[in-house]
Amino acid sequence: MSQAGEQGTLFVISAPSGAGKTSLVAEMLKNDAKLGVSISHTTRPMREGEQDGVNYHFVSRDEFEAMIARGDFLEHADVFGNYYGTSQVWVRETLARGEDVILEIDWQGAEQVRRLIPECVSIFIVPPSAEVLRERLTGRGTDAPDVVERRLREATEECSHALEFDYLVVNDDFQVALADLLAIVRSQRLRMQVQQVRHRDLLAGLSGKA
Amino acid sequence: MSQAGEQGTLFVISAPSGAGKTSLVAEMLKNDAKLGVSISHTTRPMREGEQDGVNYHFVSRDEFEAMIARGDFLEHADVFGNYYGTSQVWVRETLARGEDVILEIDWQGAEQVRRLIPECVSIFIVPPSAEVLRERLTGRGTDAPDVVERRLREATEECSHALEFDYLVVNDDFQVALADLLAIVRSQRLRMQVQQVRHRDLLAGLSGKA
Repeated sequence: MSQAGEQGTLFVISAPSGAGKTSLVAEMLKNDAKLGVSISHTTRPMREGEQDGVNYHFVSRDEFEAMIARGDFLEHADVFGNYYGTSQVWVRETLARGEDVILEIDWQGAEQVRRLIPECVSIFIVPPSAEVLRERLTGRGTDAPDVVERRLREATEECSHALEFDYLVVNDDFQVALADLLAIVRSQRLRMQVQQVRHRDLLAGLSGKA
Repeated sequence: MSQAGEQGTLFVISAPSGAGKTSLVAEMLKNDAKLGVSISHTTRPMREGEQDGVNYHFVSRDEFEAMIARGDFLEHADVFGNYYGTSQVWVRETLARGEDVILEIDWQGAEQVRRLIPECVSIFIVPPSAEVLRERLTGRGTDAPDVVERRLREATEECSHALEFDYLVVNDDFQVALADLLAIVRSQRLRMQVQQVRHRDLLAGLSGKA
């Protein structure tokens, strides 16, 4: 279906932990065959059940730092001593094939991506209330208080950047939030900027310029 | 649900005749209770089955021209000797109540509206091919050739302005086109600009500023 020049859209999705982002993105991918998700590179150790190239591209610190030096990353971060990053080549090639890509990253990654791909569409997901967020992050009361405190502080910090995003989805009812996200993706594909490439011949024919 | 300051979105929908715009808009209104459609003012005679204030606001030429002079119209046009126009007061008041409004107008009306309400969202609907359009406009072959020719010329002229619109919807399958239009409307309500007003307290609470 792709005509030459048809570009996919890059969707950047961020949220505080506890907002349901990961489950929502997984469901988006099931519902929309034209959506792909970027698989991050990381230096953190592989966990049981994980697969290289599926959950992450697992690389050494040396490899990761060489990639940083070559400008291979669209965004990267050091999270508690482990690197995480998004391959710029993969994202750009996928978009160039006319496919849409989702990046699940934090506000700092989103800021880096906006600088390199300003036409990206960014979406922030929030839980329905600060109380719900607190409940989800304090968990079953089995975590150390300082761990819980750190999670809450990070969530608050993340949410303080919500206004930098293009769209806000409130995850109160999972199905409603999912439909919201799918509507945002669908509407992006209907933008004239995208459609005028996809339907170039149709538009020319209709306006007598065929 | 409306908080002070929450603004509705103005959707401008244009299409060549034969694209199915009127049926699609009617179905959008049935599917989305938060959408209203502007009822135009006109000087053309009321037809059988029409009701004043339902199909149109029927007014005299003198009244219409007095309204033009007062700047009452968001857009107006003289179509074969009959005036048609959209009341500016009604549209602005409805948007100010946080409700969304659809205007079904032609590209010239759309151009006037963009000048007065630049934040409007404009959608152009097209049939799936120039052949389908031609078939629909030549009708059952009972119309005079000059009438058919005029219709085709107008449709071509209308389509030559498609690129001025924000979104393009191709009405090949009616249900797909309807879902496209509803996705555009839904996504507009999720824009941060709209949501940050609707969810002001939530965002403040989540980012520790409540």
